Amino acid sequence: MFNILDCTLRDGGYYTNWDFSKETVKTYFEAFNHLPVEYLEVGYRSNPMKGYLGEYFYCPVPVLQQIKSLSNKKLVIILNEKDVRAEDAEPLLKPIAGLVDMVRIAIDPKNFERAVVLAKEVKKLGFEVGFNVMYMSTWASQKEFLDNLPLAAGAADIFYMVDSFGGVYPQDVRDTIALVKSKVDIPLGFHGHNNMELGLINTLTAIEEGCAMVDATITGMGRGAGNLKTELLLTVLNAQGKLDFDFNALSRVVDVFTDLQKYYEWGTNLPYMVSGANSLPQKNVMEWVSKRYYSFNSIIRALNNTSKGQQDNFRLPLLDFKKEPVFKSALIVGGGPSPVEHSDAIELFLKNNPKIAVIHASSKNAMSFKNVPNQQYFCLVGNEGYRLESVFGYSVPKKGKCILPPYPRKMGTYIPDSMKDNAYELSKIRFTDQFTDSHTAIAFQTALEFGFKSLYIVGYDGYNGVISEKEQELFNENVQLFEAFKKNTEIELISLTRTSYKQLESQSIYSQI
Amino acid sequence: MFNILDCTLRDGGYYTNWDFSKETVKTYFEAFNHLPVEYLEVGYRSNPMKGYLGEYFYCPVPVLQQIKSLSNKKLVIILNEKDVRAEDAEPLLKPIAGLVDMVRIAIDPKNFERAVVLAKEVKKLGFEVGFNVMYMSTWASQKEFLDNLPLAAGAADIFYMVDSFGGVYPQDVRDTIALVKSKVDIPLGFHGHNNMELGLINTLTAIEEGCAMVDATITGMGRGAGNLKTELLLTVLNAQGKLDFDFNALSRVVDVFTDLQKYYEWGTNLPYMVSGANSLPQKNVMEWVSKRYYSFNSIIRALNNTSKGQQDNFRLPLLDFKKEPVFKSALIVGGGPSPVEHSDAIELFLKNNPKIAVIHASSKNAMSFKNVPNQQYFCLVGNEGYRLESVFGYSVPKKGKCILPPYPRKMGTYIPDSMKDNAYELSKIRFTDQFTDSHTAIAFQTALEFGFKSLYIVGYDGYNGVISEKEQELFNENVQLFEAFKKNTEIELISLTRTSYKQLESQSIYSQI
Repeated sequence: MFNILDCTLRDGGYYTNWDFSKETVKTYFEAFNHLPVEYLEVGYRSNPMKGYLGEYFYCPVPVLQQIKSLSNKKLVIILNEKDVRAEDAEPLLKPIAGLVDMVRIAIDPKNFERAVVLAKEVKKLGFEVGFNVMYMSTWASQKEFLDNLPLAAGAADIFYMVDSFGGVYPQDVRDTIALVKSKVDIPLGFHGHNNMELGLINTLTAIEEGCAMVDATITGMGRGAGNLKTELLLTVLNAQGKLDFDFNALSRVVDVFTDLQKYYEWGTNLPYMVSGANSLPQKNVMEWVSKRYYSFNSIIRALNNTSKGQQDNFRLPLLDFKKEPVFKSALIVGGGPSPVEHSDAIELFLKNNPKIAVIHASSKNAMSFKNVPNQQYFCLVGNEGYRLESVFGYSVPKKGKCILPPYPRKMGTYIPDSMKDNAYELSKIRFTDQFTDSHTAIAFQTALEFGFKSLYIVGYDGYNGVISEKEQELFNENVQLFEAFKKNTEIELISLTRTSYKQLESQSIYSQI
Repeated sequence: MFNILDCTLRDGGYYTNWDFSKETVKTYFEAFNHLPVEYLEVGYRSNPMKGYLGEYFYCPVPVLQQIKSLSNKKLVIILNEKDVRAEDAEPLLKPIAGLVDMVRIAIDPKNFERAVVLAKEVKKLGFEVGFNVMYMSTWASQKEFLDNLPLAAGAADIFYMVDSFGGVYPQDVRDTIALVKSKVDIPLGFHGHNNMELGLINTLTAIEEGCAMVDATITGMGRGAGNLKTELLLTVLNAQGKLDFDFNALSRVVDVFTDLQKYYEWGTNLPYMVSGANSLPQKNVMEWVSKRYYSFNSIIRALNNTSKGQQDNFRLPLLDFKKEPVFKSALIVGGGPSPVEHSDAIELFLKNNPKIAVIHASSKNAMSFKNVPNQQYFCLVGNEGYRLESVFGYSVPKKGKCILPPYPRKMGTYIPDSMKDNAYELSKIRFTDQFTDSHTAIAFQTALEFGFKSLYIVGYDGYNGVISEKEQELFNENVQLFEAFKKNTEIELISLTRTSYKQLESQSIYSQI
C-alpha cells in the first residue's frame, strides 16, 4: 500500500504568500480528519528571509500548536536545502519536535551531497526524513548525482522524485523509478505538476510502479500550473475500490479552495503548457503570467525564444534622435481611460502645439490620436505590436514610428507589417535598472533621449477603489519608475488628466487649450 | 500520420446554446487558418426542434457560406442519429454540399444498424462520413453492436470511439482499439472527455495505437467537463517535434475562449470527476451544476446515490399537520438580503403575532430569527442541512422542525445531528409538477398543508441590474412556482420586503408593526 500527502498549504502558499485565513485553515484540517490522507505538509521552516512571507512560510511554534489541536494527521514541514545548512537544523527543528512528524528537504540534485549532511542532523532530532529531489527529468544526465544516490539509504526514510517542470510522461516516471532503484534501495515518492494535465496519470503510474507515497493538493493549488488535485486522486481511487471516505468532507474543503482559485487563478494555461512540454522553469512563467502587461502571446514568444534560441529576435536600427524633428516637449500617453474621455481637448492641445511629440506607452488609446497632426512614437513591448495592429487595422498614422526595447528582447520582436520600415530600438534604458522591459520605462527613456525640460502625461490615471493584485503591482512599478526618473533626471513630469500617482505634478488639459 | 479535428463551436455550443458572437467566430476561423488542424466541426444540422437553439445548432446555408469565406480548412457538421432518419439526409444535407466536406453521425451503439442506413444516404450525397459512436466503455458487453461492427466498413470513412462518460484510461483506449480492429478494418478516431484530466494521455495513446484522427476543442470547451484542449495537444506535439505552427495564432484564439470560460465555467470539477470515475452520464451533472441551489455536496451525494443505490436515503416520518399548533398564517423566508436589513422590524412583527409560523425556504437568513419566539420550520433540500448547521453552530432554535422533500430524495438526506428527532418529510408536492425539489416548492407546499388564507413572504427580493444566467434561471423558476401556486390555490401571497416578483402582492413590514 501507499500513503498520500496533501501539501495544499505549503505549495499553495506560492499564490497567497503563505497566508491563509483562519477559517480556510480550520475547514482544511477538519475536513482532512475525515479523509484517507496520512500526511499533511503545512509549510516551510526557514531562517528569517528578506521581505514579508506569511505564517506558513515560517510555521512558528504557536501556529503548529494550533494546527496540532485541529488535526489528527501526521504533520510535515519542508526545508529549502539551498537556504538551510546542517547547523541550522537544531535551532529550526528542535522547537517543533512533538508537533511535526516528518521533515522534508527540497533538494537541487547538484547539492545532493550537502543535503545528506543536513538530513543526518534532522534525523538525529527524531523526525522522519523525506527527500524531495527536484528536476527528475534531468537526472539521467547528472553523473555526480547518480553516483551519490546510494547515500540516500541511511539518510532519508522516503525519496521523492519531483517533476519540477511538469514535463514528464508516464514512461518517464517508469524510467526514473527504474534508474533510482538501480542505485539505491529506499521507499520512493512522487510529486507531480499539472502543466500538461498529466498529474493524475503520472501519479497512478508511480503508484503502480510501487511508490510508497504521493503528493497532491486540493484543487491542485500550487506553484505555477499547480499539482495533481487531491479530490481527483481520491475520487479515482474510490471508484477503483481502493479507498472509501466521506465525500461531504472532501466537497467542503474543495469549495473553500475553489473560491480562492477564482481569485488567484492557479492551474495550467497555454504558457504553462509550453513551459512544461519543453521542460522550462516555471518560476519565470509564473512571474510573467501575474503581470498584466505581458499577454500570453508575449510569454509564449519569450518561452519559444528560450527553448529555441532567440529565433524571434533581430536587431533593429537605433533611432537617431538628433535627426528627428525638433520638438519642444512630448506628451506621454498611458493606457488609462482618461485620454478617451478627454480626447477632444487633447486633440486641440496637440493641434495648438505641433511641436509636441506624442509617445504612446500603451497602444490602447492610440485610436483617439488617429487624426492629430503631430509626430507619434509607439512603444512596442512584447505583444503590443498586435494590439497596435488591432487598434488601427492596417492604416497606421503616417507620422508614426515604432520604438522597441533594447536588443535582445526576451519577449521577442513583433512589428506590424505596415510599420516595418519605421521601427527602431533603444540602445539602453538609462534612468533605471528595474522593470526595464515595461511600457513605461520604454516611453520615458524615449522622451529622455530628446532632452526636454518638462514632459506632459495623460492616461496615467492610477486606480480607485478595490483593485486587483495585478493592478496593485503595475501601480507600484510605475511609482518606482517615476521616482527613479525624477531622481536621475531634471525633467518635470506634468499630468494633464486625473492621476493618483503622487510623483506626477497635476495640471488640467483644460487649462492648456 | 493522423489528422486533428477541432470541434469547439459544435461541442462548446452546449454552454452557449450554439450562439457565438461574430467576433469570436472570426477570430476562431482566422486563427485556425494558421494552425495544423485539418478539420473544423462547426455545428449540427437538424430538423426543427422545440425551444430556441442557436446558429450553430442548425448551421443554415448562409452561416456556412460565411464560414467558408473565412476558413481554408475542411468543414464538418454532425447529425444526431437519434433525431435524424435516412429520409432526412437529402433535405438536410443537399443544400450544404460543396460547403461542408465531412458529415459525422453521433450514434448510440444500440442504434448502430439504423445508423448504417443513414450513413449510406449521406455517402450518396458525396460527403466524407464519420461515425462518432458513444459509450465506448460499454462496448465490450454489447454483443449485438459488436456483431454489427463489420457494417461500418462500407458506410463510414472514419470510425470514432467516444469516451462519453470521461471515464476511460489509456489501457481502455488500447483495449477498445484492439476490440474494434478485431471486428472491422476501418480508420479509427478518438474523442475524449476531460473529467479525470485524462484527455491528453488517452488521445496520445490513441495516436500511438494508430488512430487516424483525434478531436479537441480550444480551452477544452465542451459539454460537461469538456474535452482535450486543442492548445495542449498542439503544444505537446510541437515539443515532440511533430508539428510546427504560429503560437501567436493559437494564443489569440485561446484568449477569446478563456474569457468565455470565466463566464460559463466549463471544465472538470468534483462532480464531473465523480461521474467520470464511475462512468455516470454527465447530462444530469451538467444540469445540476448549473443550478445555484444544488451545492457540489448535494450533487456528489446524488451521484453516489446513483452509483451505489440510494444508500444515503431513508424514510422520515411524515409531518402530521393536524397535530401541529394552530397558526393563523405563516411567514416564508427566502434567501435574499432584505430579511437581515429589516430584521428588527420582522422580529417585532413576529413577537406581536405569535400565531404566525416561520417557514425558512433557505437557511441563509435563519440566524436573524434566532430569538423569535415563534415556531419555525426549516426546509432542507440537498445540502441545506449543512448550511443550517454552519449558520447555527450546534444550538438550533428549540421550537424548530426540519421539513424535507418527499422520499426518495435524489439529492439524499442530511439532517444536522441536533435536529435528528425533529425531522419530517412531505408526502407530495401538490401545487406543481415542476421544480419539485427546489427550496421554494418545499416551503410553499409546507404552508399549503396548514391551509391558510394568506401567506406573508420576506426575502424574495428578486434581482436588479446585471444578473448571471444562474440568477436568471432561479428567478424564472420562482416565477413559475408562484404562478402555479396562485393558479392552483386560493391563497394570497403578500411580500413584506422589497420584491421584483410581480406575482407577489407587495406591502411593507413597517405597515404591520
